Amino acid sequence: MTTHQLTEKAQGKYHYTIGPYTQPVLRVRSGDTIVVETRDAFEGKIKDEKTRPSKVLEVPFLNPQSGPIYVEGAAKGDALAVRIESIKPRGPQPRGTCCLIPYFGGLTGTDFTATLQDPLPDLVRKVHITEEEGTRWNDRIIFPYEPFIGTIGTSPQIDSINSLTAAKHGGNMDLADVCPGATIYFPVKVEGALLYLGDGHAVQGDGEVCGVAIEFATTTTITVSVVKGWELAWPRLENDKFIMSIGSARPMEDAARIAFADLVTWMVSKFGFEKFDAYFILSQIGKVRLANMVDPNYTIGASIAKSYLPK
Amino acid sequence: MTTHQLTEKAQGKYHYTIGPYTQPVLRVRSGDTIVVETRDAFEGKIKDEKTRPSKVLEVPFLNPQSGPIYVEGAAKGDALAVRIESIKPRGPQPRGTCCLIPYFGGLTGTDFTATLQDPLPDLVRKVHITEEEGTRWNDRIIFPYEPFIGTIGTSPQIDSINSLTAAKHGGNMDLADVCPGATIYFPVKVEGALLYLGDGHAVQGDGEVCGVAIEFATTTTITVSVVKGWELAWPRLENDKFIMSIGSARPMEDAARIAFADLVTWMVSKFGFEKFDAYFILSQIGKVRLANMVDPNYTIGASIAKSYLPK
Amino acid sequence: MTTHQLTEKAQGKYHYTIGPYTQPVLRVRSGDTIVVETRDAFEGKIKDEKTRPSKVLEVPFLNPQSGPIYVEGAAKGDALAVRIESIKPRGPQPRGTCCLIPYFGGLTGTDFTATLQDPLPDLVRKVHITEEEGTRWNDRIIFPYEPFIGTIGTSPQIDSINSLTAAKHGGNMDLADVCPGATIYFPVKVEGALLYLGDGHAVQGDGEVCGVAIEFATTTTITVSVVKGWELAWPRLENDKFIMSIGSARPMEDAARIAFADLVTWMVSKFGFEKFDAYFILSQIGKVRLANMVDPNYTIGASIAKSYLPK
Amino acid sequence: MTTHQLTEKAQGKYHYTIGPYTQPVLRVRSGDTIVVETRDAFEGKIKDEKTRPSKVLEVPFLNPQSGPIYVEGAAKGDALAVRIESIKPRGPQPRGTCCLIPYFGGLTGTDFTATLQDPLPDLVRKVHITEEEGTRWNDRIIFPYEPFIGTIGTSPQIDSINSLTAAKHGGNMDLADVCPGATIYFPVKVEGALLYLGDGHAVQGDGEVCGVAIEFATTTTITVSVVKGWELAWPRLENDKFIMSIGSARPMEDAARIAFADLVTWMVSKFGFEKFDAYFILSQIGKVRLANMVDPNYTIGASIAKSYLPK
Repeated sequence: MTTHQLTEKAQGKYHYTIGPYTQPVLRVRSGDTIVVETRDAFEGKIKDEKTRPSKVLEVPFLNPQSGPIYVEGAAKGDALAVRIESIKPRGPQPRGTCCLIPYFGGLTGTDFTATLQDPLPDLVRKVHITEEEGTRWNDRIIFPYEPFIGTIGTSPQIDSINSLTAAKHGGNMDLADVCPGATIYFPVKVEGALLYLGDGHAVQGDGEVCGVAIEFATTTTITVSVVKGWELAWPRLENDKFIMSIGSARPMEDAARIAFADLVTWMVSKFGFEKFDAYFILSQIGKVRLANMVDPNYTIGASIAKSYLPK
Repeated sequence: MTTHQLTEKAQGKYHYTIGPYTQPVLRVRSGDTIVVETRDAFEGKIKDEKTRPSKVLEVPFLNPQSGPIYVEGAAKGDALAVRIESIKPRGPQPRGTCCLIPYFGGLTGTDFTATLQDPLPDLVRKVHITEEEGTRWNDRIIFPYEPFIGTIGTSPQIDSINSLTAAKHGGNMDLADVCPGATIYFPVKVEGALLYLGDGHAVQGDGEVCGVAIEFATTTTITVSVVKGWELAWPRLENDKFIMSIGSARPMEDAARIAFADLVTWMVSKFGFEKFDAYFILSQIGKVRLANMVDPNYTIGASIAKSYLPK
Repeated sequence: MTTHQLTEKAQGKYHYTIGPYTQPVLRVRSGDTIVVETRDAFEGKIKDEKTRPSKVLEVPFLNPQSGPIYVEGAAKGDALAVRIESIKPRGPQPRGTCCLIPYFGGLTGTDFTATLQDPLPDLVRKVHITEEEGTRWNDRIIFPYEPFIGTIGTSPQIDSINSLTAAKHGGNMDLADVCPGATIYFPVKVEGALLYLGDGHAVQGDGEVCGVAIEFATTTTITVSVVKGWELAWPRLENDKFIMSIGSARPMEDAARIAFADLVTWMVSKFGFEKFDAYFILSQIGKVRLANMVDPNYTIGASIAKSYLPK
Repeated sequence: MTTHQLTEKAQGKYHYTIGPYTQPVLRVRSGDTIVVETRDAFEGKIKDEKTRPSKVLEVPFLNPQSGPIYVEGAAKGDALAVRIESIKPRGPQPRGTCCLIPYFGGLTGTDFTATLQDPLPDLVRKVHITEEEGTRWNDRIIFPYEPFIGTIGTSPQIDSINSLTAAKHGGNMDLADVCPGATIYFPVKVEGALLYLGDGHAVQGDGEVCGVAIEFATTTTITVSVVKGWELAWPRLENDKFIMSIGSARPMEDAARIAFADLVTWMVSKFGFEKFDAYFILSQIGKVRLANMVDPNYTIGASIAKSYLPK
């Protein structure tokens, strides 16, 4: 197994849409490890607390993605397993950014939930992030260092989807379980899978309610493996404690329906449950993570503890 | 402080709608404790696994409620605090019921999400429940005993709301945090508050996805207190670890918006946060519980750990 | 057949919730006609353009309803047919009101779609309404006189539903087809049906997007008839041109699903269509009216022209 | 002005995604007319009533699009006006197709509204279409010939969106107003605009409730013009009678919010209305068309009659 370096320099141009129309920046084999330098979601444009996001950010050039990474042997109908090995902060302090962007977020009218009201203000907070302490928000409040990758996915077959949107390919799920120790499974729709990732978050609450986490540039280490012949409808995730299906849609109940229905399917096909028994059991001990309530599609993960699965 | 007994006999007729048009069955003072015998959501009509729910259940006579309990001194503009002291199982084994009800649940078309498809089957599981073991679902799977009250609320001012629906008054929230050790705060809209409760669940997963938890009859002990002059828009909850605001609405994102917006308001008015600082902070460490995705309104609780609040 | 007068004086107290807990103000027989004096939705409190709605309106005392009218012979399982005979304006000029109410309407955050943004302004327009001209909005724009009843419904079985909300019982549908010449069918859930009505609109666009139509007091003439043994799930409507099923729910697609699914059922049970043939046909020539996108439940009517029905 | 022919042969390969990654098949100038041979949405694969759609249709190769057409002079920040001149049926009889596709449509669970229920059946109807008679559905029911283009749009800037989905670029709106006599305005995001179109419907009801209209191959004549410097957020439409803004989103209320908010903006910027006056006026005489309730995004058009606009 080889370890590859996907530095900023090797990456060159970052990407703002996830699809099959971009040349791979790296070719790897199943089982290889890649150390990726991701940029923060604002690509470093929000330099200080006087910056106004609405002035420096330009749609659709948001949420830059590393990749695509071509994984040899991956073909339509397979799954790509991506294990998150570690996520380290990168760049000079204050290296973390949180902000309000007009008409974006969970408690404001938006492009889609269109209203005639004035927007909330542009506001920026720049913060220090360390692995040891996390983020000191103020004298009293310290956020833990609980890093994860907000955006990660494989190329759709013929579509190309902006990096702000989550869908069947993964994408901007903003799911805090995509953290060190987790393996995420994505549908492969094109030769080589074409994996993109970016959007590191040093910490994030359920729902990412203001629209922005503690955004930062990272050095993220992943290991990729091809699972031949495992056709997935939606992304799935696994860690030491649970298995999770991930749905992204609007309204939010559809994201939940997708996640639970896919989890029932998984329990039946892989673990031998009867369909309605799985449905009954999830009704008693299933868990739900609201990943984001702010992106063009909302994301929900539904999970069941491994202790309830047969060995 | 007095302890009252609200037995089945004292209750007499149970209620299927929560409103101001029913005579109180009990009058108590602020600070009093009440030991309530609640019936299960099917009022014992699902006696065995051969029973077909669609045959024995009759809309709207579902989810019987104990009460209303009149709390002296409670008036419009106050809040009623209800502390859940304990929840004990009641009645002969198998005392627990789980079932599928046609066109009801999270992964089926319903009365509202109307489709032309055939329903899922009527299915019943009757199970033993003990405090010590929980529920032995099968030889391999044991659900823990994590009891809570599914339905609890105070009377609206002029409406009467069926006991299957959650709204500003509380009601059928199916929120697993309404468990021993928690205090729930409800808006008071009429003299005496008129508290109703029922719908004990021995355990339930996030979302209650099949529509039914492990339903059981309980002996539930609560303590009620009037908080004068605390006007609430939606129910709130507090335990040792966190404070939580509770929204009930459709689509699900509106339940989440309500919960988070109310939590911001609470953080500002009671704990001295600035509005947008609270919004930023919740975006990093807020937690979300999906209570139900099956009732006429979906319920979401948004919470923040007390460790982030000023002492 | 008798004609009854339900004047303001005979009505006495108006009602703000539709349910079984109110004494009838009038008893009539099937086939009788009633001339009803309805109040405007603000009960005349918005007297001039300087009035601020948020100051004079008090929740939940909004949208006053005439009735309930007890119709002899109506029993659970029947339908009540209400034919709108005529709607005349009432009271001194300017007798019409339109306004913006903070956090209410289609293009603003609301109680349910909760945001942190400032509200839109309180604004009031008082306008003259005549049957001959309609409403002269300004020198260039004249709205036609197309009056209808915004709120009308029969009592639920045990619930009482505020007069701002539409549901299975009818209620605040704000459906412009409830106009002279139309017959609306409601489910009967209690003895006597208990019919309530109010909320006259001199004209209203699809969706009632700002939340308020041209609200006015009316003299409305209706004829009521009991249809024995016709059990309805949702209200239906019929006029010279079409038959319509009416769904009220959130999200809006559920209102549409309800309306179309009920219309399929109606076409099958009454007009002899096969289920999927009805579905195919509606896909080609069904019509949709968005009644309101502002009330606690959105209302949609789905219809098919009578020319496509067998004679 | 030149008239171009975009025949099946000239088109060669049809496209299933709308984006900037495809070479134009035709270059035209502003003001030119193009006669386009569109294929039906199933690309002729549903040949008879014994065909099972689920067997012959292969996702994502659905809804083939003609184009892209490069319009000289069109640049980011402009609008492209497309006038529909005429739509003629094409190909041998029975040239029309209607069908049920499993887990697709308005009254069934779907990929997104995921349920555990069995699907509705695969069903196919093949029908004759003529301009003179329309479509004879059965001995009693004849659908009028009211043809329109279901899918039409310009390329997004960096995304490529499958031809089943409507969004800011237009796409699969299934809006019956896109018919002869109408001019539709699209945002231009890339050089040459890159116009795609297809998906002719011989007739379709509001909402396209079963998921499929009377689908047919057409010869469609359009005229395209560049409107320099008119930056649009969403598509707009104009005909002799009204102007319309078009929103596509989920849940359906967001599509309505987008459409009405955009229409307010249009009334203000082009016709001199004050913002809240426009809001008031639309609340009284605005009209709503539910275009589709079946595609990945629902589409709604909000319109105002030209008679209410200043000359």
